[in-house]
Amino acid sequence: MLCNIFAKILTCIFKIHTTMKYQIAIVGLGYWGPNMVRNALSNVSVEEVHIYDIQEKNTQKILQNFSGVKVATSFENILQNPQIQAVIIATPVDTHYALAKQALLHQKHVLVEKPFTSTHQEAEELIAIAQREKLTLMVDHTFIYTPAIRKIKELITTGQLGDIYYYDSVRVNLGLFQRDVNVIWDLAPHDFSIMLHVLDKKPLALQAMGADHVGKGLEDVAYVHITFENNLIAHFHLNWLSPLKIRKTLIAGSKKMVVYDDLEPNEKIKIYDKGIDVKTKEEEYQTLIQYRSGDMYSPMLHQKETLQMVIEEFLKAITEQRKPLTDAKDGLQVVRLLEATQTSIKNGGKIVYLE
Amino acid sequence: MLCNIFAKILTCIFKIHTTMKYQIAIVGLGYWGPNMVRNALSNVSVEEVHIYDIQEKNTQKILQNFSGVKVATSFENILQNPQIQAVIIATPVDTHYALAKQALLHQKHVLVEKPFTSTHQEAEELIAIAQREKLTLMVDHTFIYTPAIRKIKELITTGQLGDIYYYDSVRVNLGLFQRDVNVIWDLAPHDFSIMLHVLDKKPLALQAMGADHVGKGLEDVAYVHITFENNLIAHFHLNWLSPLKIRKTLIAGSKKMVVYDDLEPNEKIKIYDKGIDVKTKEEEYQTLIQYRSGDMYSPMLHQKETLQMVIEEFLKAITEQRKPLTDAKDGLQVVRLLEATQTSIKNGGKIVYLE
Amino acid sequence: MLCNIFAKILTCIFKIHTTMKYQIAIVGLGYWGPNMVRNALSNVSVEEVHIYDIQEKNTQKILQNFSGVKVATSFENILQNPQIQAVIIATPVDTHYALAKQALLHQKHVLVEKPFTSTHQEAEELIAIAQREKLTLMVDHTFIYTPAIRKIKELITTGQLGDIYYYDSVRVNLGLFQRDVNVIWDLAPHDFSIMLHVLDKKPLALQAMGADHVGKGLEDVAYVHITFENNLIAHFHLNWLSPLKIRKTLIAGSKKMVVYDDLEPNEKIKIYDKGIDVKTKEEEYQTLIQYRSGDMYSPMLHQKETLQMVIEEFLKAITEQRKPLTDAKDGLQVVRLLEATQTSIKNGGKIVYLE
Amino acid sequence: MLCNIFAKILTCIFKIHTTMKYQIAIVGLGYWGPNMVRNALSNVSVEEVHIYDIQEKNTQKILQNFSGVKVATSFENILQNPQIQAVIIATPVDTHYALAKQALLHQKHVLVEKPFTSTHQEAEELIAIAQREKLTLMVDHTFIYTPAIRKIKELITTGQLGDIYYYDSVRVNLGLFQRDVNVIWDLAPHDFSIMLHVLDKKPLALQAMGADHVGKGLEDVAYVHITFENNLIAHFHLNWLSPLKIRKTLIAGSKKMVVYDDLEPNEKIKIYDKGIDVKTKEEEYQTLIQYRSGDMYSPMLHQKETLQMVIEEFLKAITEQRKPLTDAKDGLQVVRLLEATQTSIKNGGKIVYLE
Repeated sequence: MLCNIFAKILTCIFKIHTTMKYQIAIVGLGYWGPNMVRNALSNVSVEEVHIYDIQEKNTQKILQNFSGVKVATSFENILQNPQIQAVIIATPVDTHYALAKQALLHQKHVLVEKPFTSTHQEAEELIAIAQREKLTLMVDHTFIYTPAIRKIKELITTGQLGDIYYYDSVRVNLGLFQRDVNVIWDLAPHDFSIMLHVLDKKPLALQAMGADHVGKGLEDVAYVHITFENNLIAHFHLNWLSPLKIRKTLIAGSKKMVVYDDLEPNEKIKIYDKGIDVKTKEEEYQTLIQYRSGDMYSPMLHQKETLQMVIEEFLKAITEQRKPLTDAKDGLQVVRLLEATQTSIKNGGKIVYLE
Repeated sequence: MLCNIFAKILTCIFKIHTTMKYQIAIVGLGYWGPNMVRNALSNVSVEEVHIYDIQEKNTQKILQNFSGVKVATSFENILQNPQIQAVIIATPVDTHYALAKQALLHQKHVLVEKPFTSTHQEAEELIAIAQREKLTLMVDHTFIYTPAIRKIKELITTGQLGDIYYYDSVRVNLGLFQRDVNVIWDLAPHDFSIMLHVLDKKPLALQAMGADHVGKGLEDVAYVHITFENNLIAHFHLNWLSPLKIRKTLIAGSKKMVVYDDLEPNEKIKIYDKGIDVKTKEEEYQTLIQYRSGDMYSPMLHQKETLQMVIEEFLKAITEQRKPLTDAKDGLQVVRLLEATQTSIKNGGKIVYLE
Repeated sequence: MLCNIFAKILTCIFKIHTTMKYQIAIVGLGYWGPNMVRNALSNVSVEEVHIYDIQEKNTQKILQNFSGVKVATSFENILQNPQIQAVIIATPVDTHYALAKQALLHQKHVLVEKPFTSTHQEAEELIAIAQREKLTLMVDHTFIYTPAIRKIKELITTGQLGDIYYYDSVRVNLGLFQRDVNVIWDLAPHDFSIMLHVLDKKPLALQAMGADHVGKGLEDVAYVHITFENNLIAHFHLNWLSPLKIRKTLIAGSKKMVVYDDLEPNEKIKIYDKGIDVKTKEEEYQTLIQYRSGDMYSPMLHQKETLQMVIEEFLKAITEQRKPLTDAKDGLQVVRLLEATQTSIKNGGKIVYLE
Repeated sequence: MLCNIFAKILTCIFKIHTTMKYQIAIVGLGYWGPNMVRNALSNVSVEEVHIYDIQEKNTQKILQNFSGVKVATSFENILQNPQIQAVIIATPVDTHYALAKQALLHQKHVLVEKPFTSTHQEAEELIAIAQREKLTLMVDHTFIYTPAIRKIKELITTGQLGDIYYYDSVRVNLGLFQRDVNVIWDLAPHDFSIMLHVLDKKPLALQAMGADHVGKGLEDVAYVHITFENNLIAHFHLNWLSPLKIRKTLIAGSKKMVVYDDLEPNEKIKIYDKGIDVKTKEEEYQTLIQYRSGDMYSPMLHQKETLQMVIEEFLKAITEQRKPLTDAKDGLQVVRLLEATQTSIKNGGKIVYLE
C-alpha cells in the first residue's frame, strides 16, 4: 500500500522531470552568447530558444549558423512573453544588473554570465528579489562544472590532500584588451570562483597590486593575495602581457599536492604524493622535518562540453526548486573579492579586510 | 718611440697579469665550499689552496676527493699566514660578518658567499673597512655570471626589449628545510641579485606575504612585490612546498618579451617578438591597442662552469685593483631587500619604502 | 595604346576572377564532409552548395547545423544537374574511383579526399580522363596548405637547410580502428604527401614492416623506410596503439635542421642552426668533423583554416585552367607509396623498387 | 642445536660478505674510466684501486682528482700482480677481447665496458675461458641497473602490461663522432641490452637501414627492426644528426602501456591504463574493438648512482660465485644483434635471421 503510493509519487516526479520543457531566451550574442545558443539548442529540456542582441549583426551571425531559433524584436518583447520561463544573460557586465532585475520582476528564472554584477550591492538586490519571487538565480561559473575542478573538489572534501597549505594560481597570456574591463574583472572571476568552491573557506583579508602599462587606467597585470585562517593562503597572478599562455594552479596539502594545468590536453590534474612530515618529538631539528616524495598519479577525466552541464543544472534547479551548484550567492562572493582587489590596488596594495 | 714605451708598458701589464699568482683560503666546506675548492684548484692564477672548516669531517671529505690542498688548523692560522692574500667565506650567513671583518683587518681580499650578511649594518661596516684598507670585497652572486643572465642584461641594456613593464620570477620546489634560514633568505638572494643587475633601477617600495606551515617560525612560502618608477613592477614567488620544481622568469618590455627557464637544458632563453602596439591618435579605442605576435628566437649560450668565472673575476679584480662585477655594494642592496621583505611579512604585508 | 589594351585585358581577367561563381556538390557527409560543407558555405566564390550522402542521418545532421544547403536526392541527381560545375568527394576510399570517374564523365571538376584511390591503376585512369576532358582533378592533401608546411617547403627550396640528410616522421596515437583501412592507409597519406612535396625528390626504394595485434588482418603499427639518391633517407612511424599522441617530424640538412611539431600550439616549427662541419683536409680525423651548435629560431605562422585554402585553390585552378597545388598526379604518387608499403609488409619487409 | 649450527653458518656467510675486500684494476681512463675510478674508490668492498692507461695524460688527470689510487706501470704489471683479483676494462671496444682474455688467463675476474666485444666469436671464446677458469665475466650494461629499467622489468614480468605488442625506442642527439665506431655500435648497445632484458624473448629476425652523411663509411643515422613470435616487434631509431636530444621508449601491452623518457628529471616512467579491448563475439565489427583510456601513474624511482650498483654487483657475483645480473652471455646477445644490424645495413636492409 505505502509502496504503491511511493511508486505513484516517484512516477509523478519522474513525469515532471521528463516532461518539463522550457522556452528560454538568450540575451547578448557577442562572444559567449553563441555558445549558449548552440548548447541550449541541443538540450533535451529546451523546447524553444529565443535570442536577442541590440546589435543586429550579432543576431544575423546566429541565424546563419543555427536554424530553429526565434528572434525576439526587443528585450521588452522577451519580458512580456509568458511562454519564456527562463532568461540567460550574456551581455557586458555593466548591463547584468538592470537586465536580470527586469527579468526577475517579470517572473523569469535567470542565469547570468560571470562576473555576476558590477557591485556587491547590485548582487545583493538581485538575490533578494529572486528569493522573494521564489525564482532560480544562477551565475555561469563554468569552470566549476569541469571534470578537473570536480575532481579537485572531491580530493579536498574527502581529505585526501590533508590540511591545505596554499592555493597558487597563474592565469596569464597575451590578452585581449577590452574597452572597459581590466585584467582583474576579465580573468579573476574564473580563479576566485574555483578557489572559493574547492577550498570552501572564508577569506579573511586581501591585498592586491597591479599596473597599467598602456595608460588607459585599466590594469593589465595584477597579483592578488588572500589570507585565511590557519596559515592558508591563496595567490593569483593575472596578466594580459605575457608572451606565454599559462593556466597553472598548485594546491599543496599536508598529505598530497595537486597540479592543475588546464592547457594539458590529457593530464590536466596530477596528484603528487609529496610533502613534508613534521615530527613533534623534541629531537634535533634536522630530523624533525622530513621530505616525502612518492608516486604521481593522473586520473582520467571524462571530457564533456561543460556549458551543456551549466544549462542542464540551470533547468534542473528550476524544476527541482533548489539552489543551483553555482548559486547567485557564489556570484556575490566573487564580486566582493573583485571589489576588494580593486580597492586594494587603488590604495597601493593596502590590506582589505573581508567581513 | 712613444710606441716603444707603450709596448713596454703593455708587456709589463701583461707580465703582471700572467705572473700574478695567489694563495687563497677557503673557509667553510659544507654545501658550497667543495665546489669552491674544485674550481680554485683548476684556476691558473691560484698557486695554493688552503682550506678550513670547524667540522673535521668536512675537511676529511675534501681530502678524500682532492689532493694538493693545504689544511689550516684554525681560522686564526689563516689570518696570520702572510702568504694568503685572499679568503673565500662559504660558511653559514650569520658568521659572514665576523669572519669577513677579521680577514679584511688582516689585509686579506674577501669573497663572501651569498647572502652577503645578516643585516645591512654589517654589510655597510664591511664595505667601509674594505674601502679604507683598499681591499677587494666581493659577493658570490653566481647567477650574474651565467651566459643566460649576461644575455638578458645585454638585451635590456641595448634597448632591445624596450621599456620594461614587469619582471616576474617563480623559484619553487620541494625545498631543503634549514635550521635557521627561511625560504626568503634561502632562495630570494638569487632572484633579487639577478633582478637588480638586469633592470639596473632603484626599487621604491616592497610588500611581501609569507606563511609558515611547519610551525617553526620560518616561512616556507613567500611572495614579494616590488615597485619602481614608471609602472615597472617586480614579483617573486618563493616556495619550499611545491610538488614541481620551477625556475621561470618572465620579463616583458614594450618591444620584446623574454622567458628565462633555468631548467631547460638548451633553450634557457626565449625572446618573443610579442607585445602590444599603443597608438596615440584619438581614434576608436579598439584600434588604439593592437597585439603584435611575431617570431621567437633562442640564442645559443656557451655553457661554462659559472663558479670558475666567479673566482676568475675575484682574482682579476684584485690584480687590476677595480670593482668586481658583483661588488659588496650589490650584496648590500640584496640584503636591504631581504630585510625589507622580512619587515613587510612581519607586519602583515605592509608597504616598506626603500630609501 | 598598348597599355590601354593591356588594362582592358586585365580588367577582363579580373572580372572573370571576381564574378566567377560556382555551384558545387559535396558527396559524403561522414567525418570530413561536414568540414567541407562549412568551408564551402563561407567561400565567396561558391554560389550554392549541394550535399548528398547515402546515409540519411548524415544529411540530417548537416541540415541541423547549416542552413542554406541544397539536398540532392541521389548522386545521379548531382551528375545530371548542369548547374553543378564541381564535385567534392569525401566518401570512403574504395568508392573514390567510381564516383570521381562518373563525375568527370559528366564534365564536373573533381576534388577527391585523400587517399586519392585504392590502386594506382584507378588513379591513372582518372588522370587520363581529366586530361582528355580538360577538367581539374585535385586531391585534398590538406597539410600542404598549412603555414608550417609552406614554411618548410620554402626553407628547403631556397637552400637554407643545405643538402637534406634525412626526413624522419612520427605520427602515433591511440587510434580509431576502422572497418577496412589499416594504420598505413589512414595515417601515411599525410606524411607521404608532405614528404614528397617538401623534398621534391624521386624515391628509389621502400621497405616497410608492420604488425596486426588485433587479429583482423589490418596493421595497427607500421614503419616505412624510403631511400633516395645521395644518401637521403625518409622514415615513418605510424601507430594506432600509442599511449601518447605524437606528431613530430625531424628534417636535417647540411646547413640547418628543422623540427616540426604539429601539436605545439604556437611554435610548430623550430629551425636549429646545428649540424656538423666536415673538413676536407687530410688532417687527423678528430678535427675533420666538428659540431656546430647555434641559435634556434621559430618563425611566426599565420593561422588560417587550411580547408578554406583547399577549396579556394580548387576553384582558382578551375577558373585559371591550371594545375592545382595538390594535383591528381601528387595523389597518384602517394597511392604508389601506399601500395609499395603494403607489398613490402606482405613480403616481410622486402625491398620494393619504385620505378 | 640445529638452530645453533645455522646461526654459525649465517655468521660465517656474513663474515665472508663483510670481510671480503678486493683489489681491483681499472684499465682505460678515457671517457668512462674516471667514473669507474670514482665509484670504485667509494665502494666499501674495494681495498685498493689500481689504474692504467696507455696515454700518460689520462693517468695524470685521474691523479689530479683522486688521491689514493695506485698507478700501474703497464697492463702486464697488473696481470702479474697477485693482489689484484678483478679487472675492469674500459678501453675502446677493439681491445676488449685481447685485454679480457689476458686477464682471465691470469685468473682475474673481469668486468668489460659495453659493447662486450667486436665479434660474437670473441665473446664466445671469452665466455668459454671464464667458464673453464670459474671466473666471473660481466658486461657493464649500466642501464639495466637503473630504477627505471628495474621497474619496467617488474611491470612486464608480473604481467601488469599484459601481452607485449611492441617496443619502440628513439635515442637521438647531435652526436659525438668517433674515429672508428658508427652510431649503431655507439648507441644501440644501450637499447639492445634493455630490450633483451625487459622483454626476455628470443628475437627471430632483424632488418636495419642506415646512412652515412659524412662520407667516412660510418653510419650516423640508423633504424633497426626486430621481430619476435606472436607479432611482437621492436624498433630502434639511432641518430647522431638530430637537433633534439630524445631518449624515449614506448612499450605497449594488451593491458597497459609504458612511456620511458630518460630525460625527464622526475617522472621517467609513466604507466598508462590505455589500450584496446577486443571482443571475440561475432557482432558488428565496430563494437568488437573498443578503446580503453584510463588513469596515468608515475611511480617514484629512488635515484642512486647506477655505476655504484654495477661495481657492487660485480664484486658480489665474485664473492657469491654466481652469474651477475648482466652476464657475459647478455653481452654476447647484444653483440649478435649489433653484427646482424651491420650485416643487414650492408645488404641494403635485407632480413637477417637470428638463430
